[in-house]
Amino acid sequence: MYIQLALDRMTMDEAIHVTEEVYHEIDWIEVGTSLIKEYGVQSIERLKKEFPNKLLVADMKTMDNAAYECQMCFEAGADIMTAMGVAPNITVKTCLDEAKKRKKRVMIDLLNVHETLLPSLLEYKEAIFCLHVSKDEQELFGFNAARFPMFLEEMQGRTWAIAGGISLDSLDMVKQLQPYVVIIGSAITKAENKQKAAQTLKQAIFARRSHG
Amino acid sequence: MYIQLALDRMTMDEAIHVTEEVYHEIDWIEVGTSLIKEYGVQSIERLKKEFPNKLLVADMKTMDNAAYECQMCFEAGADIMTAMGVAPNITVKTCLDEAKKRKKRVMIDLLNVHETLLPSLLEYKEAIFCLHVSKDEQELFGFNAARFPMFLEEMQGRTWAIAGGISLDSLDMVKQLQPYVVIIGSAITKAENKQKAAQTLKQAIFARRSHG
Repeated sequence: MYIQLALDRMTMDEAIHVTEEVYHEIDWIEVGTSLIKEYGVQSIERLKKEFPNKLLVADMKTMDNAAYECQMCFEAGADIMTAMGVAPNITVKTCLDEAKKRKKRVMIDLLNVHETLLPSLLEYKEAIFCLHVSKDEQELFGFNAARFPMFLEEMQGRTWAIAGGISLDSLDMVKQLQPYVVIIGSAITKAENKQKAAQTLKQAIFARRSHG
Repeated sequence: MYIQLALDRMTMDEAIHVTEEVYHEIDWIEVGTSLIKEYGVQSIERLKKEFPNKLLVADMKTMDNAAYECQMCFEAGADIMTAMGVAPNITVKTCLDEAKKRKKRVMIDLLNVHETLLPSLLEYKEAIFCLHVSKDEQELFGFNAARFPMFLEEMQGRTWAIAGGISLDSLDMVKQLQPYVVIIGSAITKAENKQKAAQTLKQAIFARRSHG
């Protein structure tokens, strides 16, 4: 299970500093949507330049203009970009085509995707799917995997990630689900001791369960 | 009918230059999603500073993190921000609340909104609704108002905009629909003579039909 560090709602200097602090505990670095919209494509360039040996995920949340947005983020150094599952199908498909051309990947964010829309997205076998409780939903409901019952079943045999306010408290549940990637933001970036928080999370992820 | 100039896929200098050229022909200036993602929030700041007397629309396409994204774009000078209708309802609602606090407005982009989702969005009487054929869909299908039959009926008595590859060819149809705002991008920004193109479009919008 890979750990993706989501960087959001901070300055670029803070993003670089926190990544340095937890570098050895995490696997993938996510340039959050808030950094992209606040600082532009240079947020991606700067993080790739600082950390060239980690996979970089650009949380573009692409809804349209797929070829242009792919070009923008992949040329800036992203290895993976996100497209919204709720976007028109042609947009998702174009992202996958653009990524393939460059030997890059697309994470399809399943935020607010209705079950009737899911089958057409699951056709994209090469995608990484992201089960996502959004920040705004977390503030309303809290993190609750019960919100994805069908989706979890459909994730079997696929490459998928889980995101949305995951902390030490929700980690046991996440471990049972066995995603390919667990996306963690505030539980690390807002911790007083970020390195300690990341270490504790990593240890909890890789600890074996005790069997009686 | 207001004309909103959509600025996309260009440098900031080009965005300012084209706006200067067509300043007197257009009403609202839209900082396109591609400018926001490429140049960050400074794209909004710079256009507001150059053109303080026009309403500025930030095409944020907000899907999550509504309070933060509203703060970001409104503090940068946006008068109107866009939220995606396909976002979780709490996200749309938070955008409207954040806008109201600041006496600003939200345009709800109805791109790919299913008819079952529409009624909950139409509750937001203060919103500007945007009927939107996305760029990627235009390239697939072309602009075709027949794609919004139910939506057009629901727009009666509301404040709404129409967007998606609108040019002189589709203007007759748009005029019949009588939107509050017509959003025009490439038909102006990619024209050889941008001022002439904008003048021709404006004249066509305001020309009376001949009743021969």
